[in-house]
Amino acid sequence: MAGAAAQGATAYVTLEPCAHHGATPPCCEALAKAGIARVVAPIADSDPRVDGQGFGYLRQHGVEVTTGVGAEQALSDHAGFFLRIAQGRPWVTLKLAMTVDGRIATATGESQWITGPEARRAVHALRASHDAVMVGAGTARADDPQLTVRGFGDRRQPVRVVVSRLIDVPLMSQLAQSARDVPLWLCHGPEARSELKTAWEGVGARLLPCQISGGRIDPLAMLRALGSEGLTRVFCEGGGQLAASLLLHDLVDELQVFTAGMALGAEGYPGIGALGVARLDEAPRFDLVDVVGAGADIRHVWRRRQSA
Amino acid sequence: MAGAAAQGATAYVTLEPCAHHGATPPCCEALAKAGIARVVAPIADSDPRVDGQGFGYLRQHGVEVTTGVGAEQALSDHAGFFLRIAQGRPWVTLKLAMTVDGRIATATGESQWITGPEARRAVHALRASHDAVMVGAGTARADDPQLTVRGFGDRRQPVRVVVSRLIDVPLMSQLAQSARDVPLWLCHGPEARSELKTAWEGVGARLLPCQISGGRIDPLAMLRALGSEGLTRVFCEGGGQLAASLLLHDLVDELQVFTAGMALGAEGYPGIGALGVARLDEAPRFDLVDVVGAGADIRHVWRRRQSA
Repeated sequence: MAGAAAQGATAYVTLEPCAHHGATPPCCEALAKAGIARVVAPIADSDPRVDGQGFGYLRQHGVEVTTGVGAEQALSDHAGFFLRIAQGRPWVTLKLAMTVDGRIATATGESQWITGPEARRAVHALRASHDAVMVGAGTARADDPQLTVRGFGDRRQPVRVVVSRLIDVPLMSQLAQSARDVPLWLCHGPEARSELKTAWEGVGARLLPCQISGGRIDPLAMLRALGSEGLTRVFCEGGGQLAASLLLHDLVDELQVFTAGMALGAEGYPGIGALGVARLDEAPRFDLVDVVGAGADIRHVWRRRQSA
Repeated sequence: MAGAAAQGATAYVTLEPCAHHGATPPCCEALAKAGIARVVAPIADSDPRVDGQGFGYLRQHGVEVTTGVGAEQALSDHAGFFLRIAQGRPWVTLKLAMTVDGRIATATGESQWITGPEARRAVHALRASHDAVMVGAGTARADDPQLTVRGFGDRRQPVRVVVSRLIDVPLMSQLAQSARDVPLWLCHGPEARSELKTAWEGVGARLLPCQISGGRIDPLAMLRALGSEGLTRVFCEGGGQLAASLLLHDLVDELQVFTAGMALGAEGYPGIGALGVARLDEAPRFDLVDVVGAGADIRHVWRRRQSA
């Protein structure tokens, strides 16, 4: 696109230019052919089809290559991309919008709104920075959410993923009604009834059959299925059971927690379901990344502690 | 103490100098007699025995009085003092040291340590800034705490208050064993057995009989009893039932929350017990005062929202 301006210019990129034919021809060839004199790229692409070959091609064709600049930020930004290459699954961010005592709804199910408008706007920005927004069937039933990005202009919407072993979500829900406009994928188990599957395909949803383990959809198998569909970053918005299932299998990479100045007490609905943790040293642990005020609420971000 | 240096000097004080004979003679007389030329005091003392009479005396005796400087900070610092005058009860700060999902212990009762050394040091500083540290009987049994201020040199220790309807805390506990060194007060109900009362008095504890309502110690009556004993600031360190009882009666003025990057799941012990809140608009609400990192944890401070 730069045309003649590319001659002798420096290109700044966030990752090693690719060296293989995918959806498009190799980027390294395009850069060299355009007359780029220098490429500044923070990190190599660990995809085995690239992995240094992009940089190699550039150098062989007289393009100067500088690496390492902003490497830490690039690794963090591309964490989902690398995770999918290394483990075949997308990065998982778990959102929790809770009271100070860790409740996401009253005992009667009222949850709108615990957090304020600033926190909710931040949630929409988080949806926009992920490939997919995911909820469990209970949350889909209780909240009847749209799970779209709103308030940021006209933009590509993330895929909406509902995890429901039996596909027991109403066809009159906002998710079903909007499935032709914004992609809706249903991760279900083998025992989902075929008439329900037909009905959901009829409204435009896509079905992803998933393995069961222990009576529930196996979260790692499900995430690998989503990874093989190209997803690199999934934003999980609950509920408590899906959150617990992901945490139990050590599959939550980041926590985005919004805490409101309110208490609902022990009968309130817990943000994270049963984990079966008897001792503190068995608990999933996270390292603090950031903590700030968000309107009347606070926002704290944590990342999965790497095992020693 | 300033001697001749007081002649013509300015005295900066945080509250109107008192005008009555209490434990000491009136401060306003002492200031005038010492030759102080000017008193800078942010706010008047609402104690009916003072309430402007201190300022009046000073002015009548040729001392210049400046008020209003730092009034907001002074009102905040003296909040407990004013609350006791207005409502006869001390300021209550509730501490919660929790996981991101609001748990203070595993289902088996393990709680040491959820938060790290920086948070625990901050808790000792908070104890030191209150007249009393208070826990329920369950916490006294489960944690066998000392509830003393440690790590800040030799200083006056706050009173330790245990709320226990039946005084069902072991006499071998650290609290009982140290009752001769650091004051220990037991708030109990009328049905506490007399041999237990005698035994606790024998180890040096002081007994405060309290009213019962709904089968539990009435928290307002208890706080008023503590207020009439001179306490202006009480630091409550749980457990969940005592915290819930105080919240239910709208008696928590400040929350000091320490959140650790750990999840314990729905079976974990909740930081706040049952509140009987069915709808969000019935929930106790708090306004954010401050949020910061505290070592590996975060610390967030909230104050009771004033009813509109």
